[in-house]
Amino acid sequence: PADRDGPESESENILAGFKTPNVLSDSAREKIIFIHGKIADQDAVVILEKTPIREDTLPELFSCSSLRLETRNDIYGSYRLQAPPHLNEIKTTVIYPATEKHVKKYQRQENFLVEETGEDYESITLPYIQQQSLSLQWVYNILDKKAEADRVVYEDPDPKLGFVLLPDLKWNQKQVDDLYLIAVAHQRDVRSLRDLTSEHLPLLQNIFQKGKEAILQRYNLPSSKLRVYLHYQPSYYHLHVHFTKLGYEAPGCGVERAHLLSDVIQNLQANPQFYKTRTMYFPLRADDGLLDRFREAGRM
Amino acid sequence: PADRDGPESESENILAGFKTPNVLSDSAREKIIFIHGKIADQDAVVILEKTPIREDTLPELFSCSSLRLETRNDIYGSYRLQAPPHLNEIKTTVIYPATEKHVKKYQRQENFLVEETGEDYESITLPYIQQQSLSLQWVYNILDKKAEADRVVYEDPDPKLGFVLLPDLKWNQKQVDDLYLIAVAHQRDVRSLRDLTSEHLPLLQNIFQKGKEAILQRYNLPSSKLRVYLHYQPSYYHLHVHFTKLGYEAPGCGVERAHLLSDVIQNLQANPQFYKTRTMYFPLRADDGLLDRFREAGRM
Repeated sequence: PADRDGPESESENILAGFKTPNVLSDSAREKIIFIHGKIADQDAVVILEKTPIREDTLPELFSCSSLRLETRNDIYGSYRLQAPPHLNEIKTTVIYPATEKHVKKYQRQENFLVEETGEDYESITLPYIQQQSLSLQWVYNILDKKAEADRVVYEDPDPKLGFVLLPDLKWNQKQVDDLYLIAVAHQRDVRSLRDLTSEHLPLLQNIFQKGKEAILQRYNLPSSKLRVYLHYQPSYYHLHVHFTKLGYEAPGCGVERAHLLSDVIQNLQANPQFYKTRTMYFPLRADDGLLDRFREAGRM
Repeated sequence: PADRDGPESESENILAGFKTPNVLSDSAREKIIFIHGKIADQDAVVILEKTPIREDTLPELFSCSSLRLETRNDIYGSYRLQAPPHLNEIKTTVIYPATEKHVKKYQRQENFLVEETGEDYESITLPYIQQQSLSLQWVYNILDKKAEADRVVYEDPDPKLGFVLLPDLKWNQKQVDDLYLIAVAHQRDVRSLRDLTSEHLPLLQNIFQKGKEAILQRYNLPSSKLRVYLHYQPSYYHLHVHFTKLGYEAPGCGVERAHLLSDVIQNLQANPQFYKTRTMYFPLRADDGLLDRFREAGRM
C-alpha cells in the first residue's frame, strides 16, 4: 500500500541522501549532535538526539537486549548493552532547506555576557532586530492552525489575552521528566520582555494561570513542579513563554537568560515601565551580529 | 566453545534475572537512569546510560537506519530514527551485591517549587533557620585562615566590605571551562538575600568588582565570560557569591535558584527594602524540613 508507506519511504530517503556531513557541535553529556550537510544540493541541518530511557520499557529492555561484559572490579561490572531498535530510538530533526542562519545557530560558539541598558536597547538592539526582520511565518502558521494543529495541547483563542500551548520540538512527549512546552501569545506586537508594560499583565497572568491548569489537566503535573519563564534575548521576537519541569535542566534555563514569569509579573506590578529602563544581561554567541553592534558602540 | 561464551552468557543472565526494578533517579537530559532491584535475592543497582553519538558512525547510521516522520512544519521535519543496535549501545553498570549506601546514593529526591512572601520568610523560614542553627564553623575557619588558607585566590581583609575568594570544592582547577569560585564575605551578619538592604550595596559592589578583577588576573577570564550570582535558598546562611564560567552549566545556576548579583544590586538601588517584601520562588527537596513547615502552614 504505497499511500500508507509514503511518508516513511520519503523520510527514509531524506537521510540516505544526506551528503558531506560536517559536525557543527555536539554534547557528550546530552548525547546530541548537530550536523550540517547537503540534501539534493541544498543546505540541510540534521539534529540527532538519543531519547531518555523510559521506565515502562525496562522489563522488555532487560529481557530482549544483549549484554557484553567490558570490565569487572569487585562488585562493579561494566557492560555494553545492545537494545532492540524500537526501544532505543534517536530523535531526529531535519531542517531543509536550511539557511546560513540555521547553520550558524548550531555551530559551537563561545558566549559573551552583554550588558544592555534601556538606551542600548533603543539605539543598538531594536534597530538590529528590525533590520534583521526574521520571518515569523512558522509562528503564524501555528497560531492560524496551518501547521502543528494536532500538537496543540491547549488554546485560549482570545486575540488579546489568548495563546496556544504546545510541546517544544525538543520534547518527544514520551515522559514528563523533561516536559517542555511553549505558550505562544496570539497577540503579535510584543517582540520580547523589552516591549512588556503593565498593560500586558492580564495577558501574562492569563498565560501563567491557564498554562499551569492545562499542564495539570494533561500531564498531571502541579505548578510546584514547573519552571515558567521567558528568554531574553529570545530566539524569535514574538512573545512566548517556556514551561519546563522543575529538576529538568532544560537548555536555556540558566539565570543568565531565563526570567521567571512570576518575577516578570512582580516587576511590572512594581514598575509599569520596568523593562524599558532595566539594565539587562544576556549571553550572545561570538558570531551573533548583535554582538558586533555592541562592540562597534563601545559597549563591550 | 563454552569457555569463550562464558562472560557473555553470564552477563546476559545478569539483567534477565534483575527483578523488581525500581527507578532511583534518572536524567532525561543526560539519558541516564539509576535502578534498584534484586538479583538472586540480593540488592543490585543498575545504571543505564545512552552513549554519545560518534561522528565516525554517522555514514553507517544514516544509511542503515529506518526513519519515521513524526511531524512537519515548513522547513522543519521531526522523525524517529531506529538505528542498528551496534551503533546505538547503552553503557550499563551493575553494582551487585549493592549496599544500602549505594541505593541511597542514587535515590533522587523530588523538588518542589516554594513560593515565599516576605511574611512567609518571617513566620516560616527564619524561625526554621534559627532553630536549625547549623554550624558555620567551617566558614569561619576559612575567614580566619584556620583552614583552606592555601586555596585562597584573593582576599580583601576589610571586615565590613572584604571577602575571601577561593575555588569551590566542585572545581578541580584543571581547566577554566568549568571555573567555579566562591566569594565569602567577612561580614558575619548577612544570612541570605533576605537580609540585604541598600546599606549592603558597597559590600556587594566591592565583591563584584574585586572578584572579577581577581579572576581576570589569575585565570585571564574577563567579566564578559562570568556568571556571578547568589543562591536563594543558599546551602549555608552566611553571605557568599558564586562566580562560574558563562557557558558552563554549573549545578544551581538555573533561574529557579540563582540571582544575578548585578540584578540584586539594581533591585536594592531601586528599592532599599526589595528583599524584605519580594515574593521569592525556590526549589526544596522532598526531604527538606523547611518544606514540611511550608506544608504545615498551608503554603503548599
